[in-house]
Amino acid sequence: MTDPRKATNETEHRQAMQELQAEMRAKMRAAKDKRGLIVVHTGNGKGKTTAAFGMMTRMLAHGGKCVVIQFIKSGSDAVSKLLRGPNLSWHHVGDGFTWETQNREADIASCRSGWNLALDYLRSDDLDFLLLDEINVVLSYDYLPKDEVLAALRAKRADLHVVCTGRGAPAELIELADLVTEMREIKHPFNAGVKAQLGIEY
Amino acid sequence: MTDPRKATNETEHRQAMQELQAEMRAKMRAAKDKRGLIVVHTGNGKGKTTAAFGMMTRMLAHGGKCVVIQFIKSGSDAVSKLLRGPNLSWHHVGDGFTWETQNREADIASCRSGWNLALDYLRSDDLDFLLLDEINVVLSYDYLPKDEVLAALRAKRADLHVVCTGRGAPAELIELADLVTEMREIKHPFNAGVKAQLGIEY
Repeated sequence: MTDPRKATNETEHRQAMQELQAEMRAKMRAAKDKRGLIVVHTGNGKGKTTAAFGMMTRMLAHGGKCVVIQFIKSGSDAVSKLLRGPNLSWHHVGDGFTWETQNREADIASCRSGWNLALDYLRSDDLDFLLLDEINVVLSYDYLPKDEVLAALRAKRADLHVVCTGRGAPAELIELADLVTEMREIKHPFNAGVKAQLGIEY
Repeated sequence: MTDPRKATNETEHRQAMQELQAEMRAKMRAAKDKRGLIVVHTGNGKGKTTAAFGMMTRMLAHGGKCVVIQFIKSGSDAVSKLLRGPNLSWHHVGDGFTWETQNREADIASCRSGWNLALDYLRSDDLDFLLLDEINVVLSYDYLPKDEVLAALRAKRADLHVVCTGRGAPAELIELADLVTEMREIKHPFNAGVKAQLGIEY
């Protein structure tokens, strides 16, 4: 296909755009399957949880029922207060980052309680969107048995969306997922001595 | 530093975590500068605009004043309805994707009107967060003069956050930005014949 950015005049531009339009429409016609997705946001860059919150905001705007289970982050996120309502349940099960707790057994126990909660929600039949925040980290630390988590996701209701965030998503989860994005850090102000900014990072 | 995931017993785990904690605290002490950031979300993967919406939701939750200028996407996003309020102004200036309009001159004109709007907001003194959605695409098509856009961003108020989204962010914008994340597509359901899902993609 011609790259429209390489067009040097209006005729070439129009032709390139017509080709692009035809290609996009063919893709859209081919894509008919409506189903709940397993979505993974991983990588070392920012935006994994934030993009999941953005998706969830969309789902809430459409009247969908959403649940957040935060496995590691402590404290409460401002987003939980703004989006508060009957369609949103928000659970913090972690006690902070693992380098703050420094207690492997306690971390494992809190992951287990979060996962039991997730299993309850996975069994419910009136949920549209389940966010398992930082579960990729939990799995990469072996704080929950990977096979158990993957089996439960494999058996999920066909129309439920599940979003798994966190660095280091295991290969088996990526294999299982429908939509996987790696947030890759190109530049981070933290490394240049700029502190976390209210409204941007928390 | 020892990798905590490689720890084989509780003592090793605790030691690795103490090292990690010391490293993170040193970084936090070093990071003192409070300032408005230029944030760029680019790459071919999903979550660029969505993560910007997530950030903006945080900012709104903190009572910050936010503006969205959407340069390309047409129609209205469900998020704009859910977050509606006195602290949020939302503008669609584009007529759709460029392969739908197929008219370069009209696209350039709508980009110009969006950019003039952005310039007005950049001059205002009571704004906290400006989202220039898809401006990276606009710049990569040369629909706005790159130098003019970069100069305006360089001259922005020190405490204003500006988020620029879209594929193909120009190198000069990445150079100027404080925080840059590439959303890299690892797997996309569209390519496997799954259509865009309500609440996830729109």
